[in-house]
Amino acid sequence: MKLASFIVADRSSFGLVENDEIADVGALLKDRYADLKALIADGGFAEAAARAPEAKRISLSDAVLLPVIPNPGKIFCVGHNYESHRQETGRAKTEHPSIFLRFADSQTGHGQKLLRPAVSTMFDFEGELAVVIGQGGRAIAPERALDHVAGYACYNDASVRDWQWHTHQFTPGKNFPGTGAFGPWLVTADEVGDPAQLSVTTRLNGEVVQSQPTAEMIFPIPAIIAYVSQFTPLSPGDVIVTGTPGGVGAKRQPPLWLKDGDRIEVEIPKVGLLVNTVECERPAA
Amino acid sequence: MKLASFIVADRSSFGLVENDEIADVGALLKDRYADLKALIADGGFAEAAARAPEAKRISLSDAVLLPVIPNPGKIFCVGHNYESHRQETGRAKTEHPSIFLRFADSQTGHGQKLLRPAVSTMFDFEGELAVVIGQGGRAIAPERALDHVAGYACYNDASVRDWQWHTHQFTPGKNFPGTGAFGPWLVTADEVGDPAQLSVTTRLNGEVVQSQPTAEMIFPIPAIIAYVSQFTPLSPGDVIVTGTPGGVGAKRQPPLWLKDGDRIEVEIPKVGLLVNTVECERPAA
Repeated sequence: MKLASFIVADRSSFGLVENDEIADVGALLKDRYADLKALIADGGFAEAAARAPEAKRISLSDAVLLPVIPNPGKIFCVGHNYESHRQETGRAKTEHPSIFLRFADSQTGHGQKLLRPAVSTMFDFEGELAVVIGQGGRAIAPERALDHVAGYACYNDASVRDWQWHTHQFTPGKNFPGTGAFGPWLVTADEVGDPAQLSVTTRLNGEVVQSQPTAEMIFPIPAIIAYVSQFTPLSPGDVIVTGTPGGVGAKRQPPLWLKDGDRIEVEIPKVGLLVNTVECERPAA
Repeated sequence: MKLASFIVADRSSFGLVENDEIADVGALLKDRYADLKALIADGGFAEAAARAPEAKRISLSDAVLLPVIPNPGKIFCVGHNYESHRQETGRAKTEHPSIFLRFADSQTGHGQKLLRPAVSTMFDFEGELAVVIGQGGRAIAPERALDHVAGYACYNDASVRDWQWHTHQFTPGKNFPGTGAFGPWLVTADEVGDPAQLSVTTRLNGEVVQSQPTAEMIFPIPAIIAYVSQFTPLSPGDVIVTGTPGGVGAKRQPPLWLKDGDRIEVEIPKVGLLVNTVECERPAA
């Protein structure tokens, strides 16, 4: 099952994606579930599927897709989680995953603009697999970790590199509005199966710039969930962005920065194809 | 004016602190302001003061104080913002402040336990001045920045050092539940005046372990607000924890770690005295 968050006619909702339409289940269930996060928290996938046949159909082309979860309580990003990217960045090996955070308001949806802020020209792509937490918990054992996953989506953890490198802490370069593309929709865990049997490919204007199997993550998804849930409780709708393969623009010679009008795609077969167009913000007059 | 968030008789509220009592203004205004953050967002300080005389009085000893803002949308922490602390940690000078993030659920209130997690023995204090944002904004000019401040409080950015040092990103060591002590209350900006004319003193079991004037911050508060609001919008109730002076336990010889029963205090004259007792969590059976 595929579930999307979207806006249609100035109303935000969520629904099941079927071919090129969305069954607007959110409109039927809005009194009980304000949004997709609330549906996940209540384990409402079966109910959403049962109500889909009676839901109004909306053409995908008429909907504005939101970030899959527009309002996660916590968004964790894993740094240097593929050996190829660790090596190109010259980072030391570590015994634990490197974790930095995004705010929810840094996100954008499939088909929306990816915003290069006016204060930088060093805007870079990072194609990644995103995990959406279903059942929350603390100190989750790795062997039970995948039971806590609601589903998966594509993520472009686009990065303002000069701001990321202002100091040793990545926060500033990872939190500009309109830089975290999350979509197109959630594919439920039962349909995806083993998340270590996927692959992440990023294309810039049609050309492959990153491509790697998720089996090559240094810290696999169960290990990340176990680690993160040691230091903070996880809740339904929380998001873990699991790291990017080698090939980022910053580490090329010469560097390859995103520019106005670029089309950037993150494709994960079985999960989806996330497409965004880069827009450069103009400096304030 | 001093404003506290608290629980009394299983009900959470907020109110004006006057001597050893709280005027429970939140009970009078609850239909309009769910919490102190909502009061701040609506610029309701004058209204709260006007209603205080008719509010029920609660003895401070009968109330459980919550973190000053229990639910900030964003909590920013500044790393190495006093030269004495930068030198003891061996960090390079940077042209911009180092910013890491805390989740709201890592916080605790004045008089509550400061929790050393079962997974670590390397638990450390960091006394700091906290800024609470009143009026939000983006790309705030430094010369207008203090107009965006609702008030100030004490913060103990207590840190699980081994987890902080697992990788170059500080997130894990700064987000265990019960580690960010924030209190005892907010003192409004008009009463504090220039935040660069304060001093931060930390005492462990009565002995001074950190003490420094806020004038010695490497990045003063207006510069921090200006920088942070470049990469993310600020909203009412957001919190900026402005960095700790030298003297942390981790950099002493031998290291001075917090242990069960320790009394740790952060005092900022004109702002308050934040007191917590350390409790070591037991490993799960």
